[in-house]
Amino acid sequence: MRAVVRRRLSGWALGALLVFVAPLARAQTDPLPSWNDGAAKRAIVAFVKETTDKASPKFVAPEARIVTFDQDGTTWVEQPNYAEAMFAFDRVAIELDKHPRLKLVEPFKTIMSGNQAAIAKLTNEDLLKVAAALTHSGMTVDEFRKIVGDWLASAKHPRFKRPYTELVFQPMLEVMQYMRANGYKTYFATGGGQDFVREYAEKVYGIPPEQVIGSAADTSFGYTKDGRAVLTKTHKMLYVDDKAGKPIAIHQMIGRRPVAAFGNSVGDQQMLEYVQAGEGARLMVLVHHDDAAREYAYGPRSKVGTFTDALGAEAKKRDWVVISMKNDWKRIFAWE
Amino acid sequence: MRAVVRRRLSGWALGALLVFVAPLARAQTDPLPSWNDGAAKRAIVAFVKETTDKASPKFVAPEARIVTFDQDGTTWVEQPNYAEAMFAFDRVAIELDKHPRLKLVEPFKTIMSGNQAAIAKLTNEDLLKVAAALTHSGMTVDEFRKIVGDWLASAKHPRFKRPYTELVFQPMLEVMQYMRANGYKTYFATGGGQDFVREYAEKVYGIPPEQVIGSAADTSFGYTKDGRAVLTKTHKMLYVDDKAGKPIAIHQMIGRRPVAAFGNSVGDQQMLEYVQAGEGARLMVLVHHDDAAREYAYGPRSKVGTFTDALGAEAKKRDWVVISMKNDWKRIFAWE
Repeated sequence: MRAVVRRRLSGWALGALLVFVAPLARAQTDPLPSWNDGAAKRAIVAFVKETTDKASPKFVAPEARIVTFDQDGTTWVEQPNYAEAMFAFDRVAIELDKHPRLKLVEPFKTIMSGNQAAIAKLTNEDLLKVAAALTHSGMTVDEFRKIVGDWLASAKHPRFKRPYTELVFQPMLEVMQYMRANGYKTYFATGGGQDFVREYAEKVYGIPPEQVIGSAADTSFGYTKDGRAVLTKTHKMLYVDDKAGKPIAIHQMIGRRPVAAFGNSVGDQQMLEYVQAGEGARLMVLVHHDDAAREYAYGPRSKVGTFTDALGAEAKKRDWVVISMKNDWKRIFAWE
Repeated sequence: MRAVVRRRLSGWALGALLVFVAPLARAQTDPLPSWNDGAAKRAIVAFVKETTDKASPKFVAPEARIVTFDQDGTTWVEQPNYAEAMFAFDRVAIELDKHPRLKLVEPFKTIMSGNQAAIAKLTNEDLLKVAAALTHSGMTVDEFRKIVGDWLASAKHPRFKRPYTELVFQPMLEVMQYMRANGYKTYFATGGGQDFVREYAEKVYGIPPEQVIGSAADTSFGYTKDGRAVLTKTHKMLYVDDKAGKPIAIHQMIGRRPVAAFGNSVGDQQMLEYVQAGEGARLMVLVHHDDAAREYAYGPRSKVGTFTDALGAEAKKRDWVVISMKNDWKRIFAWE
């Protein structure tokens, strides 16, 4: 979109000269300035160039330019725990003040202890119990979005002491912008809550709510006392957007197979396989967290964002691009 | 998008003259030429003008310009039965040749009789049994799209003797194009099958697959013998996009409340109520089928597209726009 506007302005405002100069100027601008020159960067740039060049056998029609991104660990920090889990713990503290008996029951007892090591050991089932307790309160979707927004405005990451929305990987933001400038429609396909991510995805990543696919609970339709239609969150899951659930949700929400996908863990494997099984040009990318100094280094034994040896072997066998955060990224955060 | 391209070309190719002339020429062109001048047309045009005029208190930011359309009976013919039901009946005949015992069992027996009056009396549960029998065959989503495409290319409407894709209401196509030219994102919110409608919505209506919301069955993820990832249709419903299911699916798929919606039956009531319950400018429209000569006239006792007296009363009470096909539409089909 921005490219169109730029061309339009330079075209008739500055005359024929710029019509010839502008494409050259663009070609010299590095679309991925936070990346070191390496195999990962070259693969991404080559893919975008080939798929947007009408003369290339790998050309992809504009309407088919769909790319999906996992979020946690792929476009922002997911350690020591998902931002959404942190949000849920904070909400639990507020809710438990209303229902003090629950404070004596697990997993709420652990959460209330504030013991980060114990909290980090909670299982996914524990987290689901927490989520259920929260959505049980029969919040409308508008109320939910508001409390997410309020939390994001005040919560800070325990290590970086910054809002979670500032812990976005600058190199991935550049990939999103670069692909959009080349006609790609960028989607999230996250295991996180769809309505949670929708609250900030547009402002932080330029991804509108309708392009956020996430784990989703059903809602129920009803009326306020004065007859206005409202939707209330329930805890009946529609789908869990993780592992095999990712391609399923992508088909449900988009209805066409993406041509490119970015992930970072075993939860993204089936999405990448699904993308690769399509015809024509394909790009499958995994972010590998190997930079303990600037971010985190974690692999097979991590509770979140697990990158098993089997996943590494699959990436090699299927010729997926693996990004080394340490070697491929010149900087990780915009504020570095 | 088209407006942008036009302005760009005329700008630097034809010079400053056209820059001033083009907006005038556009202003004088009727965006809804198949409509008679009346309250319905005036309400639609006034809504689009107000919501796109930055100086208006009813201005709607470009990213919030979302409009949803029901399909059957709102943008194309739904009598004597939904096109998708006709498709299902044809598929049943093919499937039953493989399983002849089923031919003796209802509702298959009635469908095989070819008796249109009896077929028209089948209940929605009967139709669901038919749909289940079809999806039971474990088709991949790609195979399903192909058989829908093949059917659409050959099937003809029993009265109009034309492909179903030619039975689109030209006045509604003009509304879609007019709203898109003004920055609106047009969505379907149809009770019909999401994957069925996705097969032709882009070609016929200019609505891409990712903007088609419909009733949706779940899919399952698996691999072909040679290790390629595939999605197979199941008959477990994810949601039925009708009545209260419409606002629920709209929230699920779009994540923001549309500012305008078009429907034609009791199945669209909750969608219109949900749209109306939002803040700022709102447009709720119902198509009323009152033209037996050019299309069909049907109301409270129709099996499809039921327009009850209660719905008419609600439209009046809530100040919804009701389109009389007889009086408001100069022509109904492009080929008239």
